[in-house]
Amino acid sequence: MTHFEATCFETLDYIKNSYSARICQLEEEKKAGKKIVGTLCLFVPDEIIFAAGADRVILCGGKNDAVSIAEQYLPRNICPLIKSSFGSIVNNGYSGVKSCSHFGLVDMVVAENTCDSKKKTYELMGDYVPTYVLDLPQKPEGPAAVKYFLEELNKFKGIMEELTGNKVTVEQLKKEIISSNETRKLLHRLYDLRKREYPPISGLDMIKVMQKQYVLSAEDFKEALRTLINEAEQTRADSIAGSKDEFTHRPRIMISGCPMPGGSTKVPEIIENRGGLIVVEESCTGTRSFWDLVDENKDPMTALAERYIKIPCSCMTPNDRRIDNILELAREFKVDGVVNYTLQFCHGYNIERYKVQQALKNAGIPVLSIETDYSDSDVEQIGLRVDAFMEMLS
Amino acid sequence: MTHFEATCFETLDYIKNSYSARICQLEEEKKAGKKIVGTLCLFVPDEIIFAAGADRVILCGGKNDAVSIAEQYLPRNICPLIKSSFGSIVNNGYSGVKSCSHFGLVDMVVAENTCDSKKKTYELMGDYVPTYVLDLPQKPEGPAAVKYFLEELNKFKGIMEELTGNKVTVEQLKKEIISSNETRKLLHRLYDLRKREYPPISGLDMIKVMQKQYVLSAEDFKEALRTLINEAEQTRADSIAGSKDEFTHRPRIMISGCPMPGGSTKVPEIIENRGGLIVVEESCTGTRSFWDLVDENKDPMTALAERYIKIPCSCMTPNDRRIDNILELAREFKVDGVVNYTLQFCHGYNIERYKVQQALKNAGIPVLSIETDYSDSDVEQIGLRVDAFMEMLS
Repeated sequence: MTHFEATCFETLDYIKNSYSARICQLEEEKKAGKKIVGTLCLFVPDEIIFAAGADRVILCGGKNDAVSIAEQYLPRNICPLIKSSFGSIVNNGYSGVKSCSHFGLVDMVVAENTCDSKKKTYELMGDYVPTYVLDLPQKPEGPAAVKYFLEELNKFKGIMEELTGNKVTVEQLKKEIISSNETRKLLHRLYDLRKREYPPISGLDMIKVMQKQYVLSAEDFKEALRTLINEAEQTRADSIAGSKDEFTHRPRIMISGCPMPGGSTKVPEIIENRGGLIVVEESCTGTRSFWDLVDENKDPMTALAERYIKIPCSCMTPNDRRIDNILELAREFKVDGVVNYTLQFCHGYNIERYKVQQALKNAGIPVLSIETDYSDSDVEQIGLRVDAFMEMLS
Repeated sequence: MTHFEATCFETLDYIKNSYSARICQLEEEKKAGKKIVGTLCLFVPDEIIFAAGADRVILCGGKNDAVSIAEQYLPRNICPLIKSSFGSIVNNGYSGVKSCSHFGLVDMVVAENTCDSKKKTYELMGDYVPTYVLDLPQKPEGPAAVKYFLEELNKFKGIMEELTGNKVTVEQLKKEIISSNETRKLLHRLYDLRKREYPPISGLDMIKVMQKQYVLSAEDFKEALRTLINEAEQTRADSIAGSKDEFTHRPRIMISGCPMPGGSTKVPEIIENRGGLIVVEESCTGTRSFWDLVDENKDPMTALAERYIKIPCSCMTPNDRRIDNILELAREFKVDGVVNYTLQFCHGYNIERYKVQQALKNAGIPVLSIETDYSDSDVEQIGLRVDAFMEMLS
């Protein structure tokens, strides 16, 4: 089996290697008095943070080395994402150690009540960094949920105004909504290219781009996206990312489920190294982050509440919107099989797996379910299962 | 070490052996057209169910044998309570099999969005029995949370009216609030007796009583409590539950954490068989179920919303109320040590353990943390740890 070669657009390299420059940028901003807000979830609207004149950086951990630090405080049997995030925060900057990562640079964490583990871990996070928690209704349908969430967003706006000393105006919010929508539209364009028979970008590369979506500044990410799309669109439709032959028999895979924050690429690497081609990611580091736009013609706070509450996270019930979306993506991206990817002990996505599997079965789409953590101990075992899945799809 | 002998009030036997009679009662009620509502959590107010003229029975599973049935649908690594509940529902009455338990007798489940596993499992439950889900805010403090919960309770009232065909009147609600408060006050009286140097009832017996709190009809349970208290109060303060000698050196234990539904008595049995005396349970099958009364002088729906939202479950954040309550109970019941009891994979209570341990440490109260499931495989291992804990406390 030939290893899948990453596509080689210049911008891809820029995005992949942008971390150090971003740290310098954040440090400069802090020196200039700008406040840095850390978030850990799509449910916290960037638009409100930016409208207050703060910058934002995501704190979701994808690296295994921070897990053991967290396990001094947290149970071992919770998901690695939370342990990695918490471990990185404990380890960086807040215990007198000089920070060498973005985890040590935030002035405030704005968290959200999504899953049990995050909700309860945020209570401990406050010992290391000022932490504000947004509440979420858990039944997203109906006016009561939007109303409750809108109230929460209004409180959050007040917190941002207090942190930055800047008033969040309707004009500023509208400007930020338009700007974020532009990024969402660019991501739609980039993902559209992956619907091609020969997508110009590998799944692994795309995931690495998406991992930078909330690390880079919004403007830098948008600019990089524009260039990347230009580079990708200029290529001939049948010549990208290795030879045509190499592509011909690659099963087209959707990864669906839990997010993959920076550092976490184990499963997509296995899939693409063993013959699969990931064409779409239904996750918070995939379509869920940009699929829906914010209505630009409404009162901005209401429009934000309405858009964000619809994110089809498994913390919501019922979450049929996600099932519908998976089926729609499978059709649009001509998917041969779905890898249902969940993090160990993520009860939400693990239980929802049953409904996802049933829906895919009914649609005649094969599915492989992988529950894993950030360690390498299951790489071979997952590899064998992926091999068998690829063989079945070929 | 002598085994701890259960106290022998007649009423205790009646309560412990009341299950079959209750099944007959439910069957008779159903024949007479009464609706039976199944609940799985303290956050669903009985008062509203009763005010609509329905009966209520709890569906929380405490038995291990239903777990494997559930694991055909649910991940193995979620808590045994949910698996046992779901397995019992799948197994009883709804698949054409004649029911021989209360799980098969309910007309509707009224569930609630407390933890991730329950929330997501309820989505599957609807395939077996009509299931209505109450949403909960997750930040309980402040008027917005009460308002949102009140709206949810009003919707729930409508659902009950629809199910039963009866209007829920303010008068009926007030009557039910007074009645439920009476039960709460009786439980306070019974628990007060456990503050004695020689409590008249063992922890294991008390847990078995509490396991029947939501299985028996409200009236039968209240009546049984009255008699039990009379029996217990008539005894001399130093002569109950075995000889004085037997009591003298028993460390007084609080169990704190997850609930113990009917069938689940593994850990209290170990504790009391190995020299401990459980004097109070800080759990949903303990103090959390009756500690706070509902205000009888307010609009009844508002009073219900305000009382129920305060239940210090780990699904709420922050949950300092629980920590304060644990310290208060430890003082009041003159506790020598706390067994922090959590069900495996219950993220909420498992993560909250850190705060509980810190608070108890600061108060100078020793704590033993036990995370377990419903199987017997860890009985010996837990026994050894409990032995060491008792030795330390003696």
